[in-house]
Amino acid sequence: MGTDTSDKPEFKRSPSAFTDRITADGAEGWPVEPGRYRLVVSRACPWANRSMIARRLLGLESAISLAVADPIQDERSWRFTLDPDGRDPVLGIRYLAEAYLARDPDYTGGISVPAIVDVPSGKLVTNDYLRLPAEFATEWRALHREGAPDLYPEPLRDEIEEISDVIFRDVNNGVYRCGFARTQRTYERAYTALFTRLDALSEHLATRRYLVGDSITVADIALFVTLVRFDAVYHGHFKCNRNKLTEMPVLWAYARDLFQTPGIGDTVDFDHIKRHYYVVHHEINPSGIVPLGPDLSGWLTPHGREELGGRPFGDGTPPGPPPEAERIPAQL
Amino acid sequence: MGTDTSDKPEFKRSPSAFTDRITADGAEGWPVEPGRYRLVVSRACPWANRSMIARRLLGLESAISLAVADPIQDERSWRFTLDPDGRDPVLGIRYLAEAYLARDPDYTGGISVPAIVDVPSGKLVTNDYLRLPAEFATEWRALHREGAPDLYPEPLRDEIEEISDVIFRDVNNGVYRCGFARTQRTYERAYTALFTRLDALSEHLATRRYLVGDSITVADIALFVTLVRFDAVYHGHFKCNRNKLTEMPVLWAYARDLFQTPGIGDTVDFDHIKRHYYVVHHEINPSGIVPLGPDLSGWLTPHGREELGGRPFGDGTPPGPPPEAERIPAQL
Repeated sequence: MGTDTSDKPEFKRSPSAFTDRITADGAEGWPVEPGRYRLVVSRACPWANRSMIARRLLGLESAISLAVADPIQDERSWRFTLDPDGRDPVLGIRYLAEAYLARDPDYTGGISVPAIVDVPSGKLVTNDYLRLPAEFATEWRALHREGAPDLYPEPLRDEIEEISDVIFRDVNNGVYRCGFARTQRTYERAYTALFTRLDALSEHLATRRYLVGDSITVADIALFVTLVRFDAVYHGHFKCNRNKLTEMPVLWAYARDLFQTPGIGDTVDFDHIKRHYYVVHHEINPSGIVPLGPDLSGWLTPHGREELGGRPFGDGTPPGPPPEAERIPAQL
Repeated sequence: MGTDTSDKPEFKRSPSAFTDRITADGAEGWPVEPGRYRLVVSRACPWANRSMIARRLLGLESAISLAVADPIQDERSWRFTLDPDGRDPVLGIRYLAEAYLARDPDYTGGISVPAIVDVPSGKLVTNDYLRLPAEFATEWRALHREGAPDLYPEPLRDEIEEISDVIFRDVNNGVYRCGFARTQRTYERAYTALFTRLDALSEHLATRRYLVGDSITVADIALFVTLVRFDAVYHGHFKCNRNKLTEMPVLWAYARDLFQTPGIGDTVDFDHIKRHYYVVHHEINPSGIVPLGPDLSGWLTPHGREELGGRPFGDGTPPGPPPEAERIPAQL
């Protein structure tokens, strides 16, 4: 996602500008097709991380290719400076903005990840960060790997949406409302809502392995992407500092359990996360210095959550390792 | 202390400008006398906190009166805006700078606390932050309370100075070198020295209740004032974030033990500490927003350090409660 850091007292997240759906039946003009679309992400971004996890758990890596933007944006936003010659090798563009402009030459809004780009035309299809994981889980079913879990089970959807809504408001977006607050009052309101919600989620998860049902769903993915960034960036940089995640035993064990699940932790790049937040938000961290901490070694310690039962993949199986090209250097 | 935040890659702490000594024999023109001198502090400042603790432990409250500056400095530095009409009721001045200028009308250097001011003349005597606790412990002995501990025992002075030197360099000043670093390299060097030293101190303190000998000395006071501020400000604001103090079990228990000792924790004002650092250092925290965290309730939990033996006050006794006017509202 991009972030609205304008001079308003309270941070407001912009809605996605492009919300076309890629569907199995192609009803909106964008049919599911293997190899046709490219998922552009930053590994720093929690909203992009959701799509990356869903893609990995469902085994969509060969159906939807992956472009990883540099965690450091410049004034033209996300760029492909990690690639040879600074161009995405498939789309041939230097800035994600080029795909936005290919779609709408008059577009002047924010440039956000995750973005799905139609490879043949080079046009952005959608940057609908909240809907992508569920779309991957449903519309793309024909291309799932064998043993793919059901991340968005029909009978649980109301419950998933309900809990995802409050997690979005108080947690996913709540940390940004803390960090980008312009007044003490708006900060304090966001902080209080955040920790009140985290306490409620701790209680909820004390006796359940996952948020909804007994398997991983898109709701768990939504909560995980914020928790995994909590101590690395939100705690200090965004002043979400009542406690570290490591000091909230239930959520810390829950987050470790997911982190250690194949297809989840292997999408997390703490180096990209820390550099993005601390370097890009110069209005919060003018020096641009990236903290050496926190000590991350705890992420691989036993979590004990198996005792709560649950079947991580439901009737499915764990995914294999990530494609060679997508592996993240060891950081723990 | 004031802080040098000029645009150098590495933070350098200015030496004290005025280092006259108040002595029992008056050799430097400033004899020890009850009621003659006023100790000007900010409760936010770790260097001032050292003098406040020594004064409390030794029972010098009635001999040396206390002026508490507003934790928020303005462009003229420390000011008495907490007092009626914004003037220190004893010195009659609005800014500590006035005492510096009374001493040296041409003075253009930094204005720092702790400062000792001669009440009759209104002149600054000394701002020698590192020496004051030991001076209180030795030169002011005739005015100590009955049962005052020996904070600077003669046979242990070499050992005290040696450990205080490394604590100053790597810890007390080390946190500032992290926070005010202008380059990634100088930050990383300071961070590494800080945590290497904290690890060594943890090991040292694992089997000893206090740093030197078996009673509280000025060395413990020196380490405590940084530890008590660690999670509240240094961890996030200064990027000293490998761990929180609460995650370093030996140092956390050691700090709690001292905090719970009469005369030490009762000098600590977390509200002043947090507001000073987060509001004054706008180059680090441009929004001026003061974090609501961390949760401080752990400071009063049992520490178990009595098992290591040691006699907090040596042959002496604990001090009574602070004078009514110096009591800090409950914050935990």
